[in-house]
Amino acid sequence: MRHELPLFQPKDPDYAARVRASFDMQQAMQLIGAELVELEPGYAEIHLAHDPKITQQHGYIHGGVVGMIADSAAGYAANTLTPHDTSVLTVEYKLNLLAPADGQRLVARGEVIKPGRTLLITRAEVFAVRDEKWALCAVMQQTIMAMHGKKDGTA
Amino acid sequence: MRHELPLFQPKDPDYAARVRASFDMQQAMQLIGAELVELEPGYAEIHLAHDPKITQQHGYIHGGVVGMIADSAAGYAANTLTPHDTSVLTVEYKLNLLAPADGQRLVARGEVIKPGRTLLITRAEVFAVRDEKWALCAVMQQTIMAMHGKKDGTA
Amino acid sequence: MRHELPLFQPKDPDYAARVRASFDMQQAMQLIGAELVELEPGYAEIHLAHDPKITQQHGYIHGGVVGMIADSAAGYAANTLTPHDTSVLTVEYKLNLLAPADGQRLVARGEVIKPGRTLLITRAEVFAVRDEKWALCAVMQQTIMAMHGKKDGTA
Amino acid sequence: MRHELPLFQPKDPDYAARVRASFDMQQAMQLIGAELVELEPGYAEIHLAHDPKITQQHGYIHGGVVGMIADSAAGYAANTLTPHDTSVLTVEYKLNLLAPADGQRLVARGEVIKPGRTLLITRAEVFAVRDEKWALCAVMQQTIMAMHGKKDGTA
Repeated sequence: MRHELPLFQPKDPDYAARVRASFDMQQAMQLIGAELVELEPGYAEIHLAHDPKITQQHGYIHGGVVGMIADSAAGYAANTLTPHDTSVLTVEYKLNLLAPADGQRLVARGEVIKPGRTLLITRAEVFAVRDEKWALCAVMQQTIMAMHGKKDGTA
Repeated sequence: MRHELPLFQPKDPDYAARVRASFDMQQAMQLIGAELVELEPGYAEIHLAHDPKITQQHGYIHGGVVGMIADSAAGYAANTLTPHDTSVLTVEYKLNLLAPADGQRLVARGEVIKPGRTLLITRAEVFAVRDEKWALCAVMQQTIMAMHGKKDGTA
Repeated sequence: MRHELPLFQPKDPDYAARVRASFDMQQAMQLIGAELVELEPGYAEIHLAHDPKITQQHGYIHGGVVGMIADSAAGYAANTLTPHDTSVLTVEYKLNLLAPADGQRLVARGEVIKPGRTLLITRAEVFAVRDEKWALCAVMQQTIMAMHGKKDGTA
Repeated sequence: MRHELPLFQPKDPDYAARVRASFDMQQAMQLIGAELVELEPGYAEIHLAHDPKITQQHGYIHGGVVGMIADSAAGYAANTLTPHDTSVLTVEYKLNLLAPADGQRLVARGEVIKPGRTLLITRAEVFAVRDEKWALCAVMQQTIMAMHGKKDGTA
């Protein structure tokens, strides 16, 4: 889905280090085993290996966990475009679950559609990967708010 | 939000045991520490104690975890109204995060708005509770699909 | 749905005249025949009479028209709480259509759930009324942005 | 957005005539001046010329009207893939308004993401076109239900 979109110019040249530090502070991401694998301006990709501890009653990865990595991938995509002293928060998102998250791993790709100063509109796609076959299992549309002057990790 | 709604008659008199068994099979719910506390026809309530392992970068409970318990509370509210041989799956949901999940515990209340045969429309509210003061921190609207003839825990 | 919510104190004592003037500038509302019937702080109600010109292929009122009055009712509910020099715009909304809009008239009730300074979170319910029997036909959840210092009708 | 998607094989070889006949029965589409311009399997495009009668208080095309054509474009995209005796209805949609609908005309492009037998998941993008410059003004994500055995225009 990436090639149709405009390329973005980051306001913070050190966006990657800043976003990775924020991700590392999210204990919930470590709890489920999520990894922030790729970052570009306006784009973030999170990978998640299958593990029984994150499953639902049929043995697939829980839909709520799918939502967590979709939300995070798109939120961090937005965060790549904000100034260095700015954190982001999710105003809202809408997730469609298209198929069971039946894979050895999941890949969540978040991207910015519209980078406003206060609000950034994003979307994400989540794929379940089994034996290198990719199946789209969720799509999300999201609104992110930039908190100017509020760095991550500060009270 | 409950008193405005019609009361529902469950099709399965043993809905509570069935729904609790399904919840207990969701390892992801155990991972985050969620408990299914209350069940009535068309209603489910999930509680979640604060724990550092489920936090985001500011120390509050992660928005994705808030989404998980909202999704589950509303999905199990729907599941109370389906026949005994029917499991449910989330088609989609939309979550607004209204305030940081800043509480000693969270309470997610899910309820059915419209119980169709194939699709059930639900909503949820999540409260952060601190020193017995309740603050509304998220609202969700959701579509659930009933899988007739497909019990939970069967392949 | 109104009695569960906190009462709101309007910042602009003349909110009703201001909101009605804004509604009257919306030619699209006149085109479909919508009327702004009731206003209270944090609440707005729009009525719409059935007319063949606003129908879909089965003769019911078009779902898009249902969305228009739900969006407007909740947006104007938000507008009752903003300062006098502030207009509002819809950031996003999510609408579930529960039943055909099969009535002699529709009633859309919008209300504010969370009145922030920049963002206001709202919801709406739309009822189809036939022979004074009310049927819930749509529910909506919405995010509104306040444009401080930008009055309605100014460029 | 079209080239990333799989091509679809229609079940009804006469899908185009069927879908156009359904569109022509929607008086609400005529009321606002919407035209169904392009149809392919899994894709529909609706155009709408600017007219003062469909504006909001700032003179732009009303957000609710933007929602109407997004909803219809994606719904008819779904309808191209259903059997000949099947009508579709919108279960729900979520619309983000990204910019004012400031154009001489709007173009709404709807496409199917996932064509299930009962539910079809779709999305739409709406562009405002001024002097042949295209600006993305809305994005939508939607759930459509196929009503098998229920043709359009039958009671």
